Amino acid sequence: MSRSNKKTKRLWETRNLRVLVDMDCVLADFEGSLLKKWKERYPNEPHIALEERRGFYVTKQYGDIREDLKSKIIEVLSSEGFFRELPPIEGAIDAIKEISSMEGVEVFICTAPLKEYQHCAVEKYEWIEKYFGRDWLARVILTRDKTVISADLLIDDRTDITGAEKNPSWRQVVFTACHNKHTPSNLLPKHSVRLESWLDSDTWKQIIEDAKKKL
Amino acid sequence: MSRSNKKTKRLWETRNLRVLVDMDCVLADFEGSLLKKWKERYPNEPHIALEERRGFYVTKQYGDIREDLKSKIIEVLSSEGFFRELPPIEGAIDAIKEISSMEGVEVFICTAPLKEYQHCAVEKYEWIEKYFGRDWLARVILTRDKTVISADLLIDDRTDITGAEKNPSWRQVVFTACHNKHTPSNLLPKHSVRLESWLDSDTWKQIIEDAKKKL
Repeated sequence: MSRSNKKTKRLWETRNLRVLVDMDCVLADFEGSLLKKWKERYPNEPHIALEERRGFYVTKQYGDIREDLKSKIIEVLSSEGFFRELPPIEGAIDAIKEISSMEGVEVFICTAPLKEYQHCAVEKYEWIEKYFGRDWLARVILTRDKTVISADLLIDDRTDITGAEKNPSWRQVVFTACHNKHTPSNLLPKHSVRLESWLDSDTWKQIIEDAKKKL
Repeated sequence: MSRSNKKTKRLWETRNLRVLVDMDCVLADFEGSLLKKWKERYPNEPHIALEERRGFYVTKQYGDIREDLKSKIIEVLSSEGFFRELPPIEGAIDAIKEISSMEGVEVFICTAPLKEYQHCAVEKYEWIEKYFGRDWLARVILTRDKTVISADLLIDDRTDITGAEKNPSWRQVVFTACHNKHTPSNLLPKHSVRLESWLDSDTWKQIIEDAKKKL
């Protein structure tokens, strides 16, 4: 095979690296904002400091303190404006814009709405439009099952993602959040890697480049 | 290999058939309802009878009549209540419930929200909750790109679905709608099959069974 043929073949075979990015605790500061609003709404109730958070479901951890706290925390989460007003996580917006501008990389925002969808769903779209612009609306996927989304990488803080697809196509990048920072690496999903912060651009660039090489 | 081993192997390998089902024009009577509301809202403007509808985008066909009709039809589509009030297509709800109860079959509702997402997104969840119940909310996927959803079948009325994934994993079942009923079979997506109506249960049962055999 001649050189030019080889090159043609390589170009033909090249496909984009597809990266799914979660919203809550990855792009938007869900936990910090929830704690702040919880203390404002229920100043006389106990609160869980971020350093004390364990397990993905904050609703469960409050419910374990006292049963009625679970419905109270859901009330705060599902109230109008909660998702719209989430501040971005430091460095997230710039990092995602940079990743999506990398050659051969495509980004989708992949997020699970609350079962209490009344405000959550629309506010997630508003949030993406506000911080990324209207064009990015086409890259939003709202799904409670992320295993059926076909991609190469999923950047997500949840460490026990399951769903209908037993062998998801993506490799997980575990984004560090208050609730998973104590999880030892042997309890993280198989073949996953950790990303501590968007400010650590050396690490996320390396993860993207490594994944591109494996295409 | 002994018989028992063979059987174990077969059980081990069995996976569910995953079926994606679109909403507008497949579960919900988008076109009929739009025409009705259009005539109520703009009785003095021209309308396009369902028999005259051609092409996926009703907004385009109205815009081709007169440019300002496009924004007027978008106004009707994106107004509060439009999606919530869509009547189900005849036989759709029962058929989908029956498909999802078939052994080895799992169903997801896969629907693209309008760019004008303000009412559309939440009302799609309301609609599913109303007709299928709260448990089905977990099976809803809102995405403008259906090619990245991994499945065996996609039941959808749109005949030119494209997206980031050049080789979607699903085979399309083209659900007949006013805008595609005149499309000749050689212009339908490769390897697709047509389903004319949910009332034709022989056909959809056969499609599901054939797809199960190919797993």
